[in-house]
Amino acid sequence: MIDLYGCQGRLDNVDFLVRVLETASERMGSKIVKKVTHKFSPTGVTVILILAETHISIHTWPESQYAALDVFICNENVDPEVGWRAVKEFLKPSHFSVHKLKRKVG
Amino acid sequence: MIDLYGCQGRLDNVDFLVRVLETASERMGSKIVKKVTHKFSPTGVTVILILAETHISIHTWPESQYAALDVFICNENVDPEVGWRAVKEFLKPSHFSVHKLKRKVG
Repeated sequence: MIDLYGCQGRLDNVDFLVRVLETASERMGSKIVKKVTHKFSPTGVTVILILAETHISIHTWPESQYAALDVFICNENVDPEVGWRAVKEFLKPSHFSVHKLKRKVG
Repeated sequence: MIDLYGCQGRLDNVDFLVRVLETASERMGSKIVKKVTHKFSPTGVTVILILAETHISIHTWPESQYAALDVFICNENVDPEVGWRAVKEFLKPSHFSVHKLKRKVG
């Protein structure tokens, strides 16, 4: 879970954010199985991709230049760091905070 | 983020899991804006609801009686605990682990 502050990317642009998450997924080598987006009024976007390896989601608050990113991965051969680095490249946050959580099946 | 172990609910049934998350959202007083589901082969389901207050998602591993639930809420008047209690009622886990994370906009 990553909080991105001071983002320079276009946080109110659905197509841009879809491209960001698609790129992140591709770089991780993840398979995208479904996509859902929503543009809030007056501002804010949600994009979620269901992956074969769980999901990646972003919620944006453009008025605060803030985005909340989740990279949830259930395959040890897929590195969520790679996805996060791609998002960082696009959104150019001035600062951020990262929380890692290991979850165990069964 | 909640890991549910030893679930008795029908973890391979998309309609059931949609009803679970819809009920959780309703009890929290959340507005559902979009829904996306996926049934994996041979087993496993993902259901994600975009809410006006962010999202609620579940990923299931029926073969392990395990489900990973996220209740991500950005409105202080909406209590994620209420949503989690609803899910617990339906899925009846024998045990579970809960991780809370406060995220700050801007």
